[in-house]
Amino acid sequence: MTAPSDTKVFRATTTAPVNIAVIKYWGKRDATLNLPTNSSLSVTLSQRSLRTLTTASCSAKYPTADELTLNGKPQDIQSSKRTLACLSALRSLRQELEAADSSLPKLSALPLRIVSENNFPTAAGLASSAAGFAALVRAVADLYQLPQSPRDLSRIARQGSGSACRSLMGGYVAWRAGTLADGSDSLAEEVAPESHWPEMRALVLVVSAEKKDVPSTEGMQTTVATSGLFATRAESVVPERMTAIETAIQNRDFPAFAEITMRDSNGFHATCLDSWPPIFYMNDVSRAAVRLVHDINRAVSRTACAYTFDAGPNAVIYYLEKDSELVAGTVKAILGAGSEGWDGPFYEPLKNLTAPGVALDKVDPRAVEVLKEGVSRVILTGVGEGPVSVKDHHLVSETGGILSS
Amino acid sequence: MTAPSDTKVFRATTTAPVNIAVIKYWGKRDATLNLPTNSSLSVTLSQRSLRTLTTASCSAKYPTADELTLNGKPQDIQSSKRTLACLSALRSLRQELEAADSSLPKLSALPLRIVSENNFPTAAGLASSAAGFAALVRAVADLYQLPQSPRDLSRIARQGSGSACRSLMGGYVAWRAGTLADGSDSLAEEVAPESHWPEMRALVLVVSAEKKDVPSTEGMQTTVATSGLFATRAESVVPERMTAIETAIQNRDFPAFAEITMRDSNGFHATCLDSWPPIFYMNDVSRAAVRLVHDINRAVSRTACAYTFDAGPNAVIYYLEKDSELVAGTVKAILGAGSEGWDGPFYEPLKNLTAPGVALDKVDPRAVEVLKEGVSRVILTGVGEGPVSVKDHHLVSETGGILSS
Repeated sequence: MTAPSDTKVFRATTTAPVNIAVIKYWGKRDATLNLPTNSSLSVTLSQRSLRTLTTASCSAKYPTADELTLNGKPQDIQSSKRTLACLSALRSLRQELEAADSSLPKLSALPLRIVSENNFPTAAGLASSAAGFAALVRAVADLYQLPQSPRDLSRIARQGSGSACRSLMGGYVAWRAGTLADGSDSLAEEVAPESHWPEMRALVLVVSAEKKDVPSTEGMQTTVATSGLFATRAESVVPERMTAIETAIQNRDFPAFAEITMRDSNGFHATCLDSWPPIFYMNDVSRAAVRLVHDINRAVSRTACAYTFDAGPNAVIYYLEKDSELVAGTVKAILGAGSEGWDGPFYEPLKNLTAPGVALDKVDPRAVEVLKEGVSRVILTGVGEGPVSVKDHHLVSETGGILSS
Repeated sequence: MTAPSDTKVFRATTTAPVNIAVIKYWGKRDATLNLPTNSSLSVTLSQRSLRTLTTASCSAKYPTADELTLNGKPQDIQSSKRTLACLSALRSLRQELEAADSSLPKLSALPLRIVSENNFPTAAGLASSAAGFAALVRAVADLYQLPQSPRDLSRIARQGSGSACRSLMGGYVAWRAGTLADGSDSLAEEVAPESHWPEMRALVLVVSAEKKDVPSTEGMQTTVATSGLFATRAESVVPERMTAIETAIQNRDFPAFAEITMRDSNGFHATCLDSWPPIFYMNDVSRAAVRLVHDINRAVSRTACAYTFDAGPNAVIYYLEKDSELVAGTVKAILGAGSEGWDGPFYEPLKNLTAPGVALDKVDPRAVEVLKEGVSRVILTGVGEGPVSVKDHHLVSETGGILSS
């Protein structure tokens, strides 16, 4: 009863990176299409530290409904408009190919099975949806052998999760807000590849998570609707910063990059606080990280590190490879032996550390105390490349789990 | 050698109140004259709870230099441009009187001795300089028998400490920013007297003070110079709020008053966070107070209380007398027996409290925990009158201390 073509499974696997914005995305001008009120810019983080691995497959032998499994848990695709929007857009592109070339297998008609796993806990407060939707779009696009560029695909990923569009590329990535109502000019562009400025490092301070107060989509809507300061940020402050930080990246000017990054993080959280009811993502541990960064920079009389905070209390500290001992070394000395995460591919320059980069008496003792108590683990990483196609390394089991080969 | 007139001591004593702004003063357009970038509005707090008591005297037998003693400590007047500005302006007004009426004693030529005491610790983080300069100006004006109105004198007090101009009147007081370069139209006006809306209550949660990060004068200058959001607040957001809150006060509309108060506090702290380097006055205890107020309002489905924060972590919670049990009662139940300050003239409605106004299971348990740990004492107070002249009750000793009669 089963024809050979009915048993065939088509498959593609990709990894996708996390990105951490330095100019923040906060505010939608269209919630359905995920069109932002302002452009944003991020650093793609290395997949040697953090990545989503996603296999997309399709087969006539699969049950008729598309299936999605995230970290081993089946998801209800039908209730996720965002996932449906991505899959529908990708299927349409496949249909165009199939219509133009009748020799192509009609993959667009087959049920999809998508299995996705992060190598980091969702609870770490990292933007897992960005890597997740980027990987989903990249994997299905590979499965469908779509000719579209990452820039083109970023329009689709954007509809899954705004910041996902920036995870389709490596290095330094801008998301152009665009002006068109259909969102066709709201897409990601590589400002500079990883190779342009490969020395960028990022140290994530994972702050013991209380329950997240306000989901970011809801928070954005509240800010846009209620903050009297928000329009100024979106219309005037951010456009100037976008230009300035792109120049800083082109010139590999870390002090300029760092100051803009810190100011934009502060400005974003300011509009959250100015919302009604107010939204707080930073807590006393976050503020201790702010103080530490300012104290380190003061101690060396130059801007050696920069903090940024997304919609949560975690600090991400950017610095250059050459300042690993100074910056990460100081954090390591503060957090002490009780902290986790001091390992991995970016640990090398810290291995033989004997003393903190900055003497701890030059750092606010309260900040030291608060960080020691409030930071449970770190993630040492750096700028990295975009999604990578993975051949033959992973297979989707019949039941949806990823099998390491 | 000493003529009779040389031994005479002229004397006047006054009290002056603390005020807590509901539309915040933050930003100077002229630092010398203390001219603000935006108008502000405050509630004058009852002197039955908090007051400065100041005696101004002058005598030919005093040493030739003016003397000022604050809370028992001699101050260096010559190094305080602000005190000098106030005294100089008051002497000029006295000189005008003396020039017009030669029968008046030439008090303007005599050395001044000013002795001032607060009945609350400076460390409580209350705006003691407002009450202090208001009392100084009022006391010297009384000593000099100046005919100027509180409105006129507010121009002088403003030069001592901006917010001091609002402590020269009772009830609900606006400080009009004015537009003139000489500051002559930057003065305080009574929006409504205490008697118009006497039911207003204020509960100060004194938060265990870390060292204050940034003095307010320095902080203001930083915000004006660096925050990209500040101009929008000063030019557009605050003028609208001033109009709206004056209407709310005229109509005794507590929900409107409360929402504007909370939003303005949040907006002020947002511009602090948007400053470079960022300024943080609120901490996790402050944020727990924010949460508590929102939770109480949610539990009763109406706006029964409002928070506001000055340049420090203390919360001031406004509510109406009829909601004393609901609001202050809930705070009392949270803070428990270990907390101080549950006494004084505004304690009556809480005396027979048996249960919290809002069941504690309707309040964020984290906020309860943080408040319990972080709030050492409260001050129960309410709206009150302006400076009061005190006759024969206090005397200045030769050495500068105030003697109770």
